[in-house]
Amino acid sequence: MKKLILLLLVITSTTSFAQTDSTFIREIYDEALEKGEAYENLRSLCKDIGARITGSAEAEMAVKWGEKLLKSYNFDNVYLQEIKVPHWERGTTEAAWIENEAGEILKLDILALGGSIGTNGLITGEVIEVLDVKALQQLSENEVKGKIVFLSQAFDKKNIQTFKSYGACYPIRGLGTNEAGKLNAKAVVIRSLATPEDDFPHTGTMHYDEDVNKIPGAAMSTNNATLLSEWLKKGKVTLKMEMDCKTYPDVTSYNVIAEMNGKDDKVITWGGHLDSWDVGEGAHDDGAGIAHSIEALRILKELGYQPNHKLRCVLFMNEENGNMGGKSYAKIVSEKKEEHICAIESDRGGFLPVGFDVNGTEDQLKMVQNYETLLNSFELYRFRKGFGGVDIGPLKEYYPNMIQLGMAISSQRYFNYHHTNNDVFEAVNQRELELGSAAMATMVYLMDKTLK
Amino acid sequence: MKKLILLLLVITSTTSFAQTDSTFIREIYDEALEKGEAYENLRSLCKDIGARITGSAEAEMAVKWGEKLLKSYNFDNVYLQEIKVPHWERGTTEAAWIENEAGEILKLDILALGGSIGTNGLITGEVIEVLDVKALQQLSENEVKGKIVFLSQAFDKKNIQTFKSYGACYPIRGLGTNEAGKLNAKAVVIRSLATPEDDFPHTGTMHYDEDVNKIPGAAMSTNNATLLSEWLKKGKVTLKMEMDCKTYPDVTSYNVIAEMNGKDDKVITWGGHLDSWDVGEGAHDDGAGIAHSIEALRILKELGYQPNHKLRCVLFMNEENGNMGGKSYAKIVSEKKEEHICAIESDRGGFLPVGFDVNGTEDQLKMVQNYETLLNSFELYRFRKGFGGVDIGPLKEYYPNMIQLGMAISSQRYFNYHHTNNDVFEAVNQRELELGSAAMATMVYLMDKTLK
Repeated sequence: MKKLILLLLVITSTTSFAQTDSTFIREIYDEALEKGEAYENLRSLCKDIGARITGSAEAEMAVKWGEKLLKSYNFDNVYLQEIKVPHWERGTTEAAWIENEAGEILKLDILALGGSIGTNGLITGEVIEVLDVKALQQLSENEVKGKIVFLSQAFDKKNIQTFKSYGACYPIRGLGTNEAGKLNAKAVVIRSLATPEDDFPHTGTMHYDEDVNKIPGAAMSTNNATLLSEWLKKGKVTLKMEMDCKTYPDVTSYNVIAEMNGKDDKVITWGGHLDSWDVGEGAHDDGAGIAHSIEALRILKELGYQPNHKLRCVLFMNEENGNMGGKSYAKIVSEKKEEHICAIESDRGGFLPVGFDVNGTEDQLKMVQNYETLLNSFELYRFRKGFGGVDIGPLKEYYPNMIQLGMAISSQRYFNYHHTNNDVFEAVNQRELELGSAAMATMVYLMDKTLK
Repeated sequence: MKKLILLLLVITSTTSFAQTDSTFIREIYDEALEKGEAYENLRSLCKDIGARITGSAEAEMAVKWGEKLLKSYNFDNVYLQEIKVPHWERGTTEAAWIENEAGEILKLDILALGGSIGTNGLITGEVIEVLDVKALQQLSENEVKGKIVFLSQAFDKKNIQTFKSYGACYPIRGLGTNEAGKLNAKAVVIRSLATPEDDFPHTGTMHYDEDVNKIPGAAMSTNNATLLSEWLKKGKVTLKMEMDCKTYPDVTSYNVIAEMNGKDDKVITWGGHLDSWDVGEGAHDDGAGIAHSIEALRILKELGYQPNHKLRCVLFMNEENGNMGGKSYAKIVSEKKEEHICAIESDRGGFLPVGFDVNGTEDQLKMVQNYETLLNSFELYRFRKGFGGVDIGPLKEYYPNMIQLGMAISSQRYFNYHHTNNDVFEAVNQRELELGSAAMATMVYLMDKTLK
């Protein structure tokens, strides 16, 4: 009975809280939907800067772009945070062909995996199809040596959340080349980590152990992968490939930061990542998160909100291949003995926002779920335990008690665009982007009001 | 206290219900996502048939297409239901220009409103801008006579659900031409009922009173409308237009019906509409609803489901301009004294399904909400009172106690495509369409299990 009374008390207090806040949240949404600047900011980032892989001239331009834009909004503080980042370039040559015993030749749609070495000229090898990294690890060196390993694991379409399928396939991209190198394979090609059957190869990061025999790795389109499997069922297939991608020495880059001062110095931080892969325009990944994050701070300032805590929007550098932005940020702010109480990330595209995932305690989840009725009226429904984000992740080590939130965004279309030439501004819908911005501003506001 | 015990009982019974059903619903989703045929069926309807306005040769082809497809699935009964439907054609000439006092001329992107008379050659008139139908009704005949009325009401972007904005603007398209005719205007042009600012005019149905002075009506793109308002602020603007659209005598057409027999003859019916406007391919409106509806029945049959009631999938004709399919269906089945206990409609596009709107009593709403926890795991969250659908609407007159459900689908992108040349197969995402099919099959299953 005590529990039931407590339940009623919670319901009552939630309701009165909701009444106080719903007006302000309505103003946030009105601003985002009627006078929003997120869509134009995303257009500018995609078209005026373009794809912006860490270490590139475009990434440097993106830093300038972010700093100038944030300064134009007259936030209390705008500054750059210097960090060291890796520098990998795709180069100018990237091609592959398969040939079967009948002499049929097909040019593949490929992209080198990020971090791969080049081929040092045209290489040729017999293709051996292996389902996944586990299966690869069970092969002997004799079976693999000198061959080109084709890792063909496909997305499990049955998962309603496509990130689950991505997670399951991640090893073929992240670890497959390294494992095949140990067995002295000549190179690795993988089926792209993608939902649809189409012609777009998806790049993404991969990893070499320090002392491993480094071999090249590339991704082919899902259509190519399906066809290659069919060819292999009929007989021997040879693959030729050439790539001149290369890793250069680390360079200096920056996280770009804007703040509104609060009544105390405790920090609520949020952001997305400013870098992208070097193909397409990095519109969904993660131009959208950048647009969401900047817009959230702009809206709160525009509405004259007086924060309780320091509100800090961070445009992180180098999420895609090293996460040096996130790691360095966490180290720097902890060394300064700043107190971080909350971090929020948007890195799941500019699609329809559906809620927030909470990386925190049961109590922290409940704190967020208390707003459920209120947020339902803005079409946000999903509040569960889950992942916050790659950029904000390293903060947990230094601030284990902080709450981290990842904006939950419908994932159905994400892996049609992720890390491809297809990830361009035109693939983002204005309203969906604006709703994401409003959702981000809303959660920042609620956390600022609630957290002591 | 009694209420609380009741609450606990409800919670307990819901949970055990969920455990019984979740396996079957999981199978529905697996079938839709892994072996789904909805996307291929939609491609075929869009590409092999195309746009299919009621009364056209394409609509006749669509009836044949639907009948053949349903027969190929070997359902218990597949048949055509004969109905009388209107027949309006756009003709071959459709153009308009505006000219300002400086002699600048601009060709407009226009589409005749469905049902409009033609212009009988090129007509010219001074443009008078009026916000909406209410404002028009307050003008005198002197102010309007001989002029071309430009109804410029824009979507309210602040509404999170875009259907609210559509509803608010609906009178300028549905009633505006008729009202301007009463004041002896020469013609009406409207700002398209659309979310984005772009170059696509949106057609849609309009209405003339029997004895009204009939004048032509057309819609221009939102970009055109914004520009025309700007020109009108600076001075007089003349509009020239020519359209040879025309209404022909009513013709015979059909609702296309497929059934699975149940343990009794009570009917659970669901569907979408087979007709579309005569532009684009009618992919979202309502090819998607057709694909959802056929796929729901296919999945239930494929999984070997044995229904309690008669399950009936209806591809309705003529939703867009007359609703003779829905009206006739209701009349025919009630005359046959069939007992209809539930009707479900999908007519909000092939985007992400988010839940179901219930047109029914509080108890019927609660019955659906009892499945909330179960459906949450399939990413369906929204169960509210709301609209069922245009096609199933007329059934309520004959079966006032039946429950009607409208599949709730994210509306953020709908009015980018609705009734335009832009509404093509390529605008539909495969996964989102498949999730809609699974949601439809799931709700049919749950209603069949629950309703006595």
